[in-house]
Amino acid sequence: MMSQLKGACLIGQSGGPTSVINASALGCIEAALKSENVTRVYGAAHGIRGVLDDCLYDMNQEDPKELALMKSTPSSVLGTCRYKLKDFNVDDTDYKRILEIFKKYNIRYFFYNGGNDSMDTCNKISQFMAKNDYEIRVMGIPKTIDNDLALTDHCPGYGSAAKYIATSCMEIYRDAKVYGTGSITVLEIMGRNAGWLTAASAIATYKGMGPDLIYLPEVPFHLDTFITDITRVYEEKGDVLVAVSEGIVDENGRYISEILSENEKAKDAFGHVQMGGLASTLANYANSKIKAKVRGIEFGIIQRCAAHIASETDANEAYMAGEEAFKAAEAGETDKMVAFERGAGPEYTCKTVLVNLSDVANFEKKVPREWVNAAGNALLQPFIDYAMPLIQGENKVPMEDGVPRFSNLKKISTCAK
Amino acid sequence: MMSQLKGACLIGQSGGPTSVINASALGCIEAALKSENVTRVYGAAHGIRGVLDDCLYDMNQEDPKELALMKSTPSSVLGTCRYKLKDFNVDDTDYKRILEIFKKYNIRYFFYNGGNDSMDTCNKISQFMAKNDYEIRVMGIPKTIDNDLALTDHCPGYGSAAKYIATSCMEIYRDAKVYGTGSITVLEIMGRNAGWLTAASAIATYKGMGPDLIYLPEVPFHLDTFITDITRVYEEKGDVLVAVSEGIVDENGRYISEILSENEKAKDAFGHVQMGGLASTLANYANSKIKAKVRGIEFGIIQRCAAHIASETDANEAYMAGEEAFKAAEAGETDKMVAFERGAGPEYTCKTVLVNLSDVANFEKKVPREWVNAAGNALLQPFIDYAMPLIQGENKVPMEDGVPRFSNLKKISTCAK
Repeated sequence: MMSQLKGACLIGQSGGPTSVINASALGCIEAALKSENVTRVYGAAHGIRGVLDDCLYDMNQEDPKELALMKSTPSSVLGTCRYKLKDFNVDDTDYKRILEIFKKYNIRYFFYNGGNDSMDTCNKISQFMAKNDYEIRVMGIPKTIDNDLALTDHCPGYGSAAKYIATSCMEIYRDAKVYGTGSITVLEIMGRNAGWLTAASAIATYKGMGPDLIYLPEVPFHLDTFITDITRVYEEKGDVLVAVSEGIVDENGRYISEILSENEKAKDAFGHVQMGGLASTLANYANSKIKAKVRGIEFGIIQRCAAHIASETDANEAYMAGEEAFKAAEAGETDKMVAFERGAGPEYTCKTVLVNLSDVANFEKKVPREWVNAAGNALLQPFIDYAMPLIQGENKVPMEDGVPRFSNLKKISTCAK
Repeated sequence: MMSQLKGACLIGQSGGPTSVINASALGCIEAALKSENVTRVYGAAHGIRGVLDDCLYDMNQEDPKELALMKSTPSSVLGTCRYKLKDFNVDDTDYKRILEIFKKYNIRYFFYNGGNDSMDTCNKISQFMAKNDYEIRVMGIPKTIDNDLALTDHCPGYGSAAKYIATSCMEIYRDAKVYGTGSITVLEIMGRNAGWLTAASAIATYKGMGPDLIYLPEVPFHLDTFITDITRVYEEKGDVLVAVSEGIVDENGRYISEILSENEKAKDAFGHVQMGGLASTLANYANSKIKAKVRGIEFGIIQRCAAHIASETDANEAYMAGEEAFKAAEAGETDKMVAFERGAGPEYTCKTVLVNLSDVANFEKKVPREWVNAAGNALLQPFIDYAMPLIQGENKVPMEDGVPRFSNLKKISTCAK
């Protein structure tokens, strides 16, 4: 039951970038460019901010070869934003402006590529347009390295971040053990509320070269237990590699990084509080209890942009999510997000399904407690089985002069700047 | 004039590991295993410490396929050490022990794979053996991501670290610019005294996606000039990406990281001195002068072990250095280090030459001042021309389960443990 709608298409990117967010945009843009129902394809500069500023890039004028390079180019080529729309029942200023711009360019297909907050934005826009009888198809395309979106088996971006983390953990494991003189290394991995990224370090452990201890925000963290854990491993192996999520909390939900900053034990020789990141403060705390060479390593933003080691599976699925979002919208769907459903059976398969934006917006999916061991310091086989298929294959990155050749778009814009 | 010498061969790895240090060891080990003059091939566990402890691994018992995987395995498979031998005129205890072990296993070929300190160790051992009329061929195989060894055009390990740094800078550049809301990002790159690694970030700038400002330890760093520099870029571009060497110093040779720790300006709201690394303290200092989103990123040890993006040129040359070291020793050379000589002409070529260990030991080669602009905040074309050939090609890394398949040696050892 195809309900035909002709008009322009607009895609925006939002929230923290990933290694494959542009693969999703590309899937959507290429499908839209091919469609007879689409009169023009636009990209919003810096997400919804570009709509509010009337700053849209004309994708029809881009070289298809440069567009194609988006498949392996990290970090939101269209620019991103962290802009939260108000409730339109309270203040509809932004929404009126969005409607004005949609009308100006006859936007009839709107795609928003992001995480929980972006799905909320997408949902609100969809509702406002319906309320104002503006015919438009609005679709969310998931994206987040955090992997915390509800109603989808996993999120585009996670597999690549997980592959980077697993690989780097293996490399650092090899490095940390070479001296054989006893050391404690603490790796700090992204993920404020959900431990999916930190859990990915368990893939390295599964391969025999990973963290000895892994702590997620899902399980309350105790400094005393931590010291008991590392002491045991240190005595057994001589070297300890620890992975912690940046968001580990105690049983009262207080961030361990905060607790350590105020902790007497973390003061330096001059009585000053140590102000470094969690990795170094936790390493220093360990050192106050166990005399060993300690080191704190913060993986940092490279986790979300290391396109040079992106997962082929992830990049292909990210592309598919964008492509399927367009196809579904063209077929008449609106107010939905494309989600992934994993097939049953031993062989990994993944297909897209549609879920309601309102069911996804503002929820966070955590790592199931039963995938973590009782002691709360290791991941169990179900997690490995879950994560392993997502990191398979290497996304092809064309190289030039020994470094990646990323996409260079012309970005011919509707705004002056 | 071949002077034949029959006996066992021993190779040790020393100092900080690199992504390709094992490629050099492999080049030497494979050549030795093929040689009719070599009765047995040993690897020293943790460098010279393994010799002192009588802990040698029997390379003849290793699976050739696992050995071959050393070409793409980071971080000293034999283990490493930071052990400085005393002057044997002062204390020859260690040397006597080394001679004892050499005699026990009839070691007639000794290779030491490392940086300046290791070449000094190598040189001292060579002298002691000569003085004691123990016939042995002693050769140094260069290795250091720091690229600071004298009398060689470049060092194995540097090209891969440079490739990782250039690629990551490009990826972070894309990431740092996506919000378009104004930011200052400070990247801290390894290199205590020589700026070669930090300079590698200029390759990203050359490709249009790199640091706006680059500061090396070779040029005195002034906090005032730094603020002037970033203010100018911030006003021009809105976002600033800065690369600094961990070892930047003021005109009196004082580390900037030290100065900032004591600087009033770097105190936090509670009056406590900020104790983070240089990247974050410098970012905070910038923020005390310019109101912007700031971020400090320390690349850390992944710079020296990111084998997943090693340079093919570097890995091949590293192998060649090890292979040529053995061949030269077999042909009668001793007390030498294998060095690289770059051919003249526009096409990059590289061949090995031999230099005296005593001429290399304990010297540090710096980035020439004339390769840095007058303002001391950017690299000039001669550096790009120098560095670019060293990062070419991608070293093949066999993958298994979506992550690298590193070498697993049996390490059948002469010692109990």
